[in-house]
Amino acid sequence: KQKSLASAFLVDKGNYRHFMAKEIHEQPEVVGRTVAHYTDLSAGRVALPFELPFDPAKLDRITIVACGTAYIAGLTAKYWFERIARVAVDIDVASEFRYREPPMSRDGVTIVISQSGETADTLASLRYAKAQGQKIVGVVNVGSSTMARESDVQALTLAGPEIGVASTKAFTCQLAVLACLALAFARARGELTVEAEARYVAEFLALPGLMAEALKHERDIEAVAHDLARARDVLYLGRGTAFPLALEGALKLKELSYIHAEGYAAGELKHGPIALVDEDLPVIVIAPPDGVFEKTVSNMQEVAARGGRIVLIGGAGGAEAASLKLHASIVMPAMAPTFAAIVYALPVQLLAYHTAVFMGKDADQPRNLAKSVTVE
Amino acid sequence: KQKSLASAFLVDKGNYRHFMAKEIHEQPEVVGRTVAHYTDLSAGRVALPFELPFDPAKLDRITIVACGTAYIAGLTAKYWFERIARVAVDIDVASEFRYREPPMSRDGVTIVISQSGETADTLASLRYAKAQGQKIVGVVNVGSSTMARESDVQALTLAGPEIGVASTKAFTCQLAVLACLALAFARARGELTVEAEARYVAEFLALPGLMAEALKHERDIEAVAHDLARARDVLYLGRGTAFPLALEGALKLKELSYIHAEGYAAGELKHGPIALVDEDLPVIVIAPPDGVFEKTVSNMQEVAARGGRIVLIGGAGGAEAASLKLHASIVMPAMAPTFAAIVYALPVQLLAYHTAVFMGKDADQPRNLAKSVTVE
Repeated sequence: KQKSLASAFLVDKGNYRHFMAKEIHEQPEVVGRTVAHYTDLSAGRVALPFELPFDPAKLDRITIVACGTAYIAGLTAKYWFERIARVAVDIDVASEFRYREPPMSRDGVTIVISQSGETADTLASLRYAKAQGQKIVGVVNVGSSTMARESDVQALTLAGPEIGVASTKAFTCQLAVLACLALAFARARGELTVEAEARYVAEFLALPGLMAEALKHERDIEAVAHDLARARDVLYLGRGTAFPLALEGALKLKELSYIHAEGYAAGELKHGPIALVDEDLPVIVIAPPDGVFEKTVSNMQEVAARGGRIVLIGGAGGAEAASLKLHASIVMPAMAPTFAAIVYALPVQLLAYHTAVFMGKDADQPRNLAKSVTVE
Repeated sequence: KQKSLASAFLVDKGNYRHFMAKEIHEQPEVVGRTVAHYTDLSAGRVALPFELPFDPAKLDRITIVACGTAYIAGLTAKYWFERIARVAVDIDVASEFRYREPPMSRDGVTIVISQSGETADTLASLRYAKAQGQKIVGVVNVGSSTMARESDVQALTLAGPEIGVASTKAFTCQLAVLACLALAFARARGELTVEAEARYVAEFLALPGLMAEALKHERDIEAVAHDLARARDVLYLGRGTAFPLALEGALKLKELSYIHAEGYAAGELKHGPIALVDEDLPVIVIAPPDGVFEKTVSNMQEVAARGGRIVLIGGAGGAEAASLKLHASIVMPAMAPTFAAIVYALPVQLLAYHTAVFMGKDADQPRNLAKSVTVE
């Protein structure tokens, strides 16, 4: 009886038209909960809720394997592990990893990421890595899943049940867990001062508020989505941790609206995709005010010179700093750049969601897709 | 006088409508020349035309950095280095690599790849890696280039001058050089028997003939291109070394025809891009008869079930083995699978070329693109 009540509660959309909208709006809460689970916020320290069965100081390399949106979370984390913890990261999609027979050291660590914990190719990769002698950290949302069971470390994301087929809150919770792991590894490797750790943890503490603020721009995003709904195809560009977000934005738009969107590292623009740019092509540029912002501005100038319609997702003043005629601008709150991807993910999700809704597509159940891919 | 005669000779299109067509057809010859330069064909051994200033047996990792099509050559080589030489490979696009401050070991090796040897982001990456103490192998087509000068090893591709903006013969020559390096590393690491080396070198010897045979299918490819010219967008799929080729096929089609094409690892299909599949979407599947062919067939079945129009680039019998209704099939000659990408690259290039020609686009000088990207 209790169980069916709980299930009824869990599948309720509340005041939202779709589960996806509800799940997007839950993110400040669930990311806050996940961060609280992995840190001691009052002490200003990361506090993992498990013992690590290896010494991060002894690692010369981490391997990350996942599929789809979880792969994109891993790609974002690669930047954090390399920059903050100074440990190199190999990353691959699971369907390639498992068949290319990658050489692996016997004392390494592999991180697998999966909302369901059942993704077939990721599970096969987990087993391959384990057979090579690797310790497995499983970043999963379902604690009773096969991957959770077979991992040496269960790094749970506390996103709660995700009903929408396109992953949203599981993604940002994966990012939060991976960010905390990167800090924990950095500290163990002597790469993190007490002050730096306290500063990063304060940034974590600020995330829910910043995410709630980002969600207030939903009307602006709807206006852009209204326009995007008429596009034939779309390009997403970003650098650094905004590059994986460009991939995620394009993936979400593809999944929900069936518009062919593609994400690119902004620096690759001139090596091919710029040929696509004309007056009809919307180019979504994700550019928080960080160390590579100026480089991204020069890519925006190339797009603008060819008439491309630029939508900038950036900080306040970003549009002015770019000194370009933009088609539209979605302004995110001011924040430190390191973990900005966790906040910038929200407008990216909302843009795909509202575009699909304008087009009359079922955002919760896109055609051809299943929630978890448990066969190869 | 001699010099201007030489220049006049070099810029001659011969009987071809475009330099690109000429360069595509030169590939059997220039790949043959490149392979001959890196092997002792009669002895059945790889014979690098330079001394390596490091011992490949001591490497636990190689880093590869490049942009655009050269990056795709590097991604293909990752499979060869890992599978044949059993050495792990990090690969990244240069514009991301140079800014993400990757940790690098002091005694490692970085391979940079660039036709011109002047690509700005790749050159900056070379200098970053060098400053970290890495030895640099420069795979370049221009021996007098900055990268050739600043590399510890000049691994020249003997493609001759490439005039078409979209790289073709430089790409397959890069693949040939990287394949020879993978074998040389494998031998030094004790991962290659004399028999296996002789077998691989025999496969190299067969490449020019196989490439010439592949080019004989130009009429079939033109027929597919005629159809492709009407597509709104296109998906390319592949697994293993056919995955980078899927990326290359999509990049070439984008560059030349301005049709939005995207390449995907076939195993990622169900994690998003399958939402795009309907009766209007051409899906180009590159699937040589190799160890992952059956897996790719199951992806084709998913596409077919949703009405997608499949064009299979595969071996004889591939279409029958897939037992699916295909829109079209381009049949490549029988060959050993390891280096098949060097041959399969040709129909992929021809498909983009002929699509552009049907659409009335300038295949030699696509809009917005420059031959070498010497600024960031």
